Amino acid sequence: MVFKKITLIGTSSESFEDAADNAIDRAQDTIDNVHWVEVEELGVEIASVADREYQAEVTVAFELDG
Amino acid sequence: MVFKKITLIGTSSESFEDAADNAIDRAQDTIDNVHWVEVEELGVEIASVADREYQAEVTVAFELDG
Amino acid sequence: MVFKKITLIGTSSESFEDAADNAIDRAQDTIDNVHWVEVEELGVEIASVADREYQAEVTVAFELDG
Amino acid sequence: MVFKKITLIGTSSESFEDAADNAIDRAQDTIDNVHWVEVEELGVEIASVADREYQAEVTVAFELDG
Amino acid sequence: MVFKKITLIGTSSESFEDAADNAIDRAQDTIDNVHWVEVEELGVEIASVADREYQAEVTVAFELDG
Amino acid sequence: MVFKKITLIGTSSESFEDAADNAIDRAQDTIDNVHWVEVEELGVEIASVADREYQAEVTVAFELDG
Amino acid sequence: MVFKKITLIGTSSESFEDAADNAIDRAQDTIDNVHWVEVEELGVEIASVADREYQAEVTVAFELDG
Amino acid sequence: MVFKKITLIGTSSESFEDAADNAIDRAQDTIDNVHWVEVEELGVEIASVADREYQAEVTVAFELDG
Amino acid sequence: MVFKKITLIGTSSESFEDAADNAIDRAQDTIDNVHWVEVEELGVEIASVADREYQAEVTVAFELDG
Amino acid sequence: MVFKKITLIGTSSESFEDAADNAIDRAQDTIDNVHWVEVEELGVEIASVADREYQAEVTVAFELDG
Amino acid sequence: MVFKKITLIGTSSESFEDAADNAIDRAQDTIDNVHWVEVEELGVEIASVADREYQAEVTVAFELDG
Amino acid sequence: MVFKKITLIGTSSESFEDAADNAIDRAQDTIDNVHWVEVEELGVEIASVADREYQAEVTVAFELDG
Repeated sequence: MVFKKITLIGTSSESFEDAADNAIDRAQDTIDNVHWVEVEELGVEIASVADREYQAEVTVAFELDG
Repeated sequence: MVFKKITLIGTSSESFEDAADNAIDRAQDTIDNVHWVEVEELGVEIASVADREYQAEVTVAFELDG
Repeated sequence: MVFKKITLIGTSSESFEDAADNAIDRAQDTIDNVHWVEVEELGVEIASVADREYQAEVTVAFELDG
Repeated sequence: MVFKKITLIGTSSESFEDAADNAIDRAQDTIDNVHWVEVEELGVEIASVADREYQAEVTVAFELDG
Repeated sequence: MVFKKITLIGTSSESFEDAADNAIDRAQDTIDNVHWVEVEELGVEIASVADREYQAEVTVAFELDG
Repeated sequence: MVFKKITLIGTSSESFEDAADNAIDRAQDTIDNVHWVEVEELGVEIASVADREYQAEVTVAFELDG
Repeated sequence: MVFKKITLIGTSSESFEDAADNAIDRAQDTIDNVHWVEVEELGVEIASVADREYQAEVTVAFELDG
Repeated sequence: MVFKKITLIGTSSESFEDAADNAIDRAQDTIDNVHWVEVEELGVEIASVADREYQAEVTVAFELDG
Repeated sequence: MVFKKITLIGTSSESFEDAADNAIDRAQDTIDNVHWVEVEELGVEIASVADREYQAEVTVAFELDG
Repeated sequence: MVFKKITLIGTSSESFEDAADNAIDRAQDTIDNVHWVEVEELGVEIASVADREYQAEVTVAFELDG
Repeated sequence: MVFKKITLIGTSSESFEDAADNAIDRAQDTIDNVHWVEVEELGVEIASVADREYQAEVTVAFELDG
Repeated sequence: MVFKKITLIGTSSESFEDAADNAIDRAQDTIDNVHWVEVEELGVEIASVADREYQAEVTVAFELDG
């Protein structure tokens, strides 16, 4: 069994929790066998968006086919 | 006055906030004189649980008896 | 264009999300041209407050006048 | 010449050495021109497996086609 | 479910693999419900021992009773 | 909106600036919607090349299709 | 031979040296076979104490019974 | 003698060297007695600007009046 | 309640303890409501001074007016 | 008593354990009074060698003559 | 094959690129078999020099004689 | 001008301040043109010595001959 880890940054106008969930949703929609997720960074983009954009950078670990 | 720090990992099916609170609840239920808490890591376990399990690793500092 | 970064610690009796928002609110109330924010640390003060005080240390980047 | 780095986690019921080798084997079976590997983390999964599962997280650098 | 993490340093006159295994053996002999282990540091003590003493510092995570 | 981050290592016989630019050129030639880049490491390979090979390891963040 | 490491925070109204010594004194009063100590952080608490309270966070390694 | 350190992010459409110099220029135009500078991070903003915007985050140490 | 953190470097010809105290003295002479201090780095400048100049870089957290 | 620390990188075609031992062998062949060793990094060179070359970067601490 | 790593700090009145090259030049003038170089820190000394002195701290790895 | 940095560990039965001074004394007794020193780690050896042995690991930067 070998896992691969990729890095995604989810965004949300609501909260960091939401931003992380959006990244995980995206991962689960497009990748099979997601096993775990680690939060790497939390931030907020303000200048280039209408309101605050919460961002959660996460690494997603999934199992590669045997 | 000497403090001791221990490391707990709280879990929740709801959110990181909840996971951290659960770790702090556990600490306060079993240890006197908890002074402060630091969040060390946030993660999500997916493969071995029914749904997402949010995890918050925290260190808990409490005062030792004199 | 040159940016400056300062470090604020927001507090809340409710949640880490709230604590971070309070720090960002303060920054935006007193500084023009806030561009982005990075979360540095999350913690909880317990001993010296009535209940749990959630704390979010953030750095706030804003554009200096030309 | 441009390289790309990906992150794999090899596993083994025998040893960390084996776990790292399994990740490198996988990389070399599926990617051309692997140049070097860096070990990022070593760990052991215990609760969800029959015995100890040694894990080695590595980054694998390979040359992209020109 | 709440986990606790403790830090052990296993030693061996043979290898780092052995030193880590000895720390995990000790943990499993004295603690129920060990879930996972992370390797923090590897070192070798030379001056105060007969031969090389391989050392592996690990953190051990186990489930606390409900 | 979800971003993905990948890690590239650009090389140049001239300078670190050039090495970073080459990695970003490569990213923009093959990926749409590159948003930002972070420099992770700078190094120089000497033994296995004719002259000095400047290397810049960068992470490249790009927007995934909705 | 297996060691365990715990984290203590010594305090003193005099100096960081004193704060570290107080943590080590506490460790040696209550634990047998303390082998070595590492200083992790130095800080000063001001607001909630009469004067400055110097703090030294240390990890203490001691040998577990065979 | 006491120094203060502040964090600036210089930008340039040319290079990282230029971006760092612009931050130092700004510091020296507005602050007396700048003593030294440390480079903290290098990055490139791409999406929200016409071309590449090189960024250098630096800390600037200057002597406070006695 | 929102805190701000600034970075000062105290100096002394005597000791690191003195250097840190000098930075904290300076902070308390010029800022109200200093709450806590963290030591970031200790160093010694030798070449450009008559004797050894001990330096302590500290961050100082103080409460902003409501 | 004053110690000095140097950094060596041992290599082996067999394993990381072997690579670390080779670095320590080299240190003990050429330096008196080696006291302890810390493993800093593990890696594998692949492109410029016949097979995998395991590498272990270690720091070696030895006592200087009085 | 065993490598040794040493730490040099190159300086230049022109640029960071120059400062790094000066350190590598020095290494290659006085050491055989330099294999690779890693950039550790970039800084600028201002107060004690006529103009800006760019500094690049690098580690230099070279092969020891067999 | 090129600097070199080496790592020394001073020891003292009295204090960390003393241990650091002993390392710097040793450096200045045997090396010309020491420019600055950085404290890397503080620790205490207990088991293999009569009393507490305070240790200060420092890096010492000195100017190489032109």
